[in-house]
Amino acid sequence: MTQIAPIDLRSDTVTRPDEAMRLAMAAAEVADDVLDHDPTMRALEDRVAELLGVDAALWVPTGSMGNLIALMIHLNRGDRFLAPAGAHVLDAELGTAAWLAGGMPHPLAWDAAPGRASAGAIRAAAGASGLYFNLRTTLLCLENTHNAAGGTVTQPDEHALLVSVAKETGLRVHLDGARLWNAAVALGVPPAALTVGVDSVQVCLSKGLGAPVGSAVAGSPTFVAEARRIRKMLGGGVRQGGVLAAAGLVGLDRIDDLAQDHANARTLAEGLVELGWTVRMPETNMVLAEVPDPEVTLIGLRHLGVYAWPMPGMLRFVTHRDVTEADIKETLRRISSAS
Amino acid sequence: MTQIAPIDLRSDTVTRPDEAMRLAMAAAEVADDVLDHDPTMRALEDRVAELLGVDAALWVPTGSMGNLIALMIHLNRGDRFLAPAGAHVLDAELGTAAWLAGGMPHPLAWDAAPGRASAGAIRAAAGASGLYFNLRTTLLCLENTHNAAGGTVTQPDEHALLVSVAKETGLRVHLDGARLWNAAVALGVPPAALTVGVDSVQVCLSKGLGAPVGSAVAGSPTFVAEARRIRKMLGGGVRQGGVLAAAGLVGLDRIDDLAQDHANARTLAEGLVELGWTVRMPETNMVLAEVPDPEVTLIGLRHLGVYAWPMPGMLRFVTHRDVTEADIKETLRRISSAS
Amino acid sequence: MTQIAPIDLRSDTVTRPDEAMRLAMAAAEVADDVLDHDPTMRALEDRVAELLGVDAALWVPTGSMGNLIALMIHLNRGDRFLAPAGAHVLDAELGTAAWLAGGMPHPLAWDAAPGRASAGAIRAAAGASGLYFNLRTTLLCLENTHNAAGGTVTQPDEHALLVSVAKETGLRVHLDGARLWNAAVALGVPPAALTVGVDSVQVCLSKGLGAPVGSAVAGSPTFVAEARRIRKMLGGGVRQGGVLAAAGLVGLDRIDDLAQDHANARTLAEGLVELGWTVRMPETNMVLAEVPDPEVTLIGLRHLGVYAWPMPGMLRFVTHRDVTEADIKETLRRISSAS
Amino acid sequence: MTQIAPIDLRSDTVTRPDEAMRLAMAAAEVADDVLDHDPTMRALEDRVAELLGVDAALWVPTGSMGNLIALMIHLNRGDRFLAPAGAHVLDAELGTAAWLAGGMPHPLAWDAAPGRASAGAIRAAAGASGLYFNLRTTLLCLENTHNAAGGTVTQPDEHALLVSVAKETGLRVHLDGARLWNAAVALGVPPAALTVGVDSVQVCLSKGLGAPVGSAVAGSPTFVAEARRIRKMLGGGVRQGGVLAAAGLVGLDRIDDLAQDHANARTLAEGLVELGWTVRMPETNMVLAEVPDPEVTLIGLRHLGVYAWPMPGMLRFVTHRDVTEADIKETLRRISSAS
Repeated sequence: MTQIAPIDLRSDTVTRPDEAMRLAMAAAEVADDVLDHDPTMRALEDRVAELLGVDAALWVPTGSMGNLIALMIHLNRGDRFLAPAGAHVLDAELGTAAWLAGGMPHPLAWDAAPGRASAGAIRAAAGASGLYFNLRTTLLCLENTHNAAGGTVTQPDEHALLVSVAKETGLRVHLDGARLWNAAVALGVPPAALTVGVDSVQVCLSKGLGAPVGSAVAGSPTFVAEARRIRKMLGGGVRQGGVLAAAGLVGLDRIDDLAQDHANARTLAEGLVELGWTVRMPETNMVLAEVPDPEVTLIGLRHLGVYAWPMPGMLRFVTHRDVTEADIKETLRRISSAS
Repeated sequence: MTQIAPIDLRSDTVTRPDEAMRLAMAAAEVADDVLDHDPTMRALEDRVAELLGVDAALWVPTGSMGNLIALMIHLNRGDRFLAPAGAHVLDAELGTAAWLAGGMPHPLAWDAAPGRASAGAIRAAAGASGLYFNLRTTLLCLENTHNAAGGTVTQPDEHALLVSVAKETGLRVHLDGARLWNAAVALGVPPAALTVGVDSVQVCLSKGLGAPVGSAVAGSPTFVAEARRIRKMLGGGVRQGGVLAAAGLVGLDRIDDLAQDHANARTLAEGLVELGWTVRMPETNMVLAEVPDPEVTLIGLRHLGVYAWPMPGMLRFVTHRDVTEADIKETLRRISSAS
Repeated sequence: MTQIAPIDLRSDTVTRPDEAMRLAMAAAEVADDVLDHDPTMRALEDRVAELLGVDAALWVPTGSMGNLIALMIHLNRGDRFLAPAGAHVLDAELGTAAWLAGGMPHPLAWDAAPGRASAGAIRAAAGASGLYFNLRTTLLCLENTHNAAGGTVTQPDEHALLVSVAKETGLRVHLDGARLWNAAVALGVPPAALTVGVDSVQVCLSKGLGAPVGSAVAGSPTFVAEARRIRKMLGGGVRQGGVLAAAGLVGLDRIDDLAQDHANARTLAEGLVELGWTVRMPETNMVLAEVPDPEVTLIGLRHLGVYAWPMPGMLRFVTHRDVTEADIKETLRRISSAS
Repeated sequence: MTQIAPIDLRSDTVTRPDEAMRLAMAAAEVADDVLDHDPTMRALEDRVAELLGVDAALWVPTGSMGNLIALMIHLNRGDRFLAPAGAHVLDAELGTAAWLAGGMPHPLAWDAAPGRASAGAIRAAAGASGLYFNLRTTLLCLENTHNAAGGTVTQPDEHALLVSVAKETGLRVHLDGARLWNAAVALGVPPAALTVGVDSVQVCLSKGLGAPVGSAVAGSPTFVAEARRIRKMLGGGVRQGGVLAAAGLVGLDRIDDLAQDHANARTLAEGLVELGWTVRMPETNMVLAEVPDPEVTLIGLRHLGVYAWPMPGMLRFVTHRDVTEADIKETLRRISSAS
């Protein structure tokens, strides 16, 4: 195939731990987190809770496990839950929200903005359950930023409105904040401004922040105690996890670096527009480009050493800390040269 | 409350067994259907299979259990399945398609007709799964007639097209035919014309046909053998069920009577239009009437001795064998008198 | 095969509804029990609750569904529950206690009597959970009479002791009383004397009492409200079930008739002993006979027109209302003639 | 509390990564193991497969997840599986074998040796399922060494016999080999001698081998492909897991070191006997000591700076690489001084 160095824009999950992060991992104080509580995991959990403005947090191996645990806690067998169409819990977690957490998903159309339903739609969907015998709608899942919509951001006031409608209609709220850090940086607000009123929130350390492994799920102390038990059930109760938590702590020091990823995404989007592509302007670190046949374009790009991600009718380019501004310019140069 | 005799148009599930049906039940030959095979249940199952043009059938206590068993057989943990929005398996079976059958529902918009997605939408939704890691879309659920859309009918050629698209894209097909008899009568075709190519189909004996209890789920002999086992799991493995199957056999002799229900629905709809209501013209035995506040109108009607069913922004009136043409006229008279 | 009339001693589930029962079914007042509440079902449920000395009851199609619903209500995911080895919920309900109700079974050895664990064993098993991280033991299932042990009876004082140990150790108690009527008749006590302190109890109408279909699960009003919802989930929410409940009501008038079944079982057991068989003396309507190769003996008996049920190292003979004292003597005559 | 340095004999899970292991982690080559295949994880998986004599292996975060994945693959809803009483999958994985893998556990008494059922008992239990309608017994779980029995070892010929009985009776075999390395070292045989004929096997890297996090589950390539998918479902699909796999690779170089743990366990056991304790002589790295009141003795030991693990009527002491021969002697000295 091509000999040129690939530029990997498939996802920010491809980020590798750097030297500083590896040194922190090597030096981490650890203990058996099942029998006792690993001190570095505890430090990470405290730090996450503080950043999110919630009372407690729990390290988990993946964001998928974090979301799954939250749904398992919030849902009883057959409860209906609402989520914006295309949400990660709906389309990218292998159906576990349904078969394992026991929830009946009800996708909400993006009638407010890409990735977001309106307050009215949530109210209508929550209330409709009363018309059927015993069907219970009990949970609203939000996603900020919304991945499938292209990393779109929900602002604090909009978030607060959706949460208040949920509460009015008796719903709990879980926030899939796998890229909540990106939303906070894009808005220039603290992450805690985006978690107001939620019953639980999941955040990832292994995407834009660059940790090799790890996420956290956060909520009340009661929620976290039950989450710890379910984490063990699912096989996520690791022992000396401090080696991973140490990487997460380094990542949390780098939240502000995400601004560079966002700038790079804008540079990429503008460059693609100049090259005649139809592109959604990025709100964070993702660029969605409409292409007639994603699989064909994908292969063409791969020959140029540019890796993207296919979606229905689109390609997704994701910027991250292992891709520099120079890499973005090189990406545009390669695409331009092939046109 | 009101002293006048109520006219119950909430659902065709309210039908009561008449004298002939009760006599048949009292005379039914029975045996232990778990240890052996109850002869009347077997006769019913053979008759249903023949009517539906499939190889085998199994009596089940309810349509919900029939649908659930089919989904349990067709779906593996986390498999995605497609169904038209508002389908009974999505909204009216307490989430069992998700938590118990293990399926991740993907509702399809009614882009072809009320209650029906287009072939293109099915093809797109089936294919999309390839873009996510390991997500498997494996089943298409159809519903004929489609209850929430107002008893709408899918014609044989349209059915065949949807099934062929499903097969092309590797999907199995389950047909929720709780009111398939109504569709067949409305179209003037045999029920078997509406089951072509399906892997399983569920039909009800306790709705328009008037049996007190019972449905059937049908498919290949292998399917039915597994369905029998799952029926026992779910607690539906009854013993001398022939007393109920006998009622079902009487019901199956009365399929043609449904034409009167359809005529009554048209009469009701036309009468309501004359009274200034906004109504969808019925294709079978259901009339959907748009009302600004369904709960308020419902209460008003109840005071008139007319029972209907609330839906979002609408009321549903269902005609059935326990409501005569005269009752429909009386219904219109009562509504008219209160206007 | 043989031309002689078979005598079916496989189970008391083979009982067929007689004329009086069929007439009651034919005359039953009915209504849609999902939309409203079928009056005959309600009458049956009230009668069962009264007989059992509990507050409320719910008709269910089968005893398996009754047990399953109770376990679904009492157990959370992964909770451990205790039951005497060989209990119906352990060995004869296709694993639903585990996979569907979510319970981790812990069988108790019969250290007190056939079919019964001692109070000490229950206390030890309940307490052991504290030694493992977060494992929760939350439920004790009793079975009276105990089927696999040969229809053995738990007396009121012993029942009360086991329940009090369960309560002390924080366990709920479910009683599988599929043949509780037999226990009450054998002991000469009212059924309510055998349900003291339980959180739920299941009783069958379709075994010794002779109804074609139906059981009931009973407990507090809250329990029954949730049971009604789960019954609908599982597909047991039938419509005009009064036709079956009417048979159950007739059956409940015949509880005392079970004494004849018990007498017949004793006659059978004594006769078999005279013929040289090794037999456990029956406490109720079951005779367990030890045989070296059950399958071979079973076939031999079948040629004689005598149907029994194979168990490991044994055959089970069950007496019931469709087998008379004369039939028992004929059974012994046939076996004797073949020796 | 006490100021003296604690000697932690609760479990070999408390082992911490040493300097060499941390350096390997810091230097590990990594990639996104979901999108691609992390090279160090691949190297570990290949190494495990080779050591176990199977075709393929998959890294998992915990042994619990490894066992769970195997059971999910081998079991269908409600299938019965056999395991020796006290098996980790029965008592220490929060019921997931039942509610999540869908299996109905059937514990086998230790009629052959502590932790092991006889071939005859397995044959009887497997065959018994045929007597109940449709109950399927499909899996035998073995555990070598058997934790709750005190780290007891199954020898190759006995293993082979049990596997052959399983195969004869149509059962699959999963081996919980969390401490299979200990069994191999104790017997002086290669680990592959203890996996003959199994359909899957789980081994831990984080116990005696000292890795901070990680286990592996191994089997055929088809098994591992499905295991990879289920790992993602459960939330174990980590990204740059090579940092952990690197530690596992170092651990695999140290299997022979377990011999010292076994020697230390013998020293401890003999010393306790000299002090008048009733002790089972260890086969590997666990010492079970019978004590009248485990909780009381546990607290007493803790004041001496000796940590053990309570079990019913016993304490468990586990030796591991973070406890030296000198620590064992100090342990005995402390206990002796307090007598």
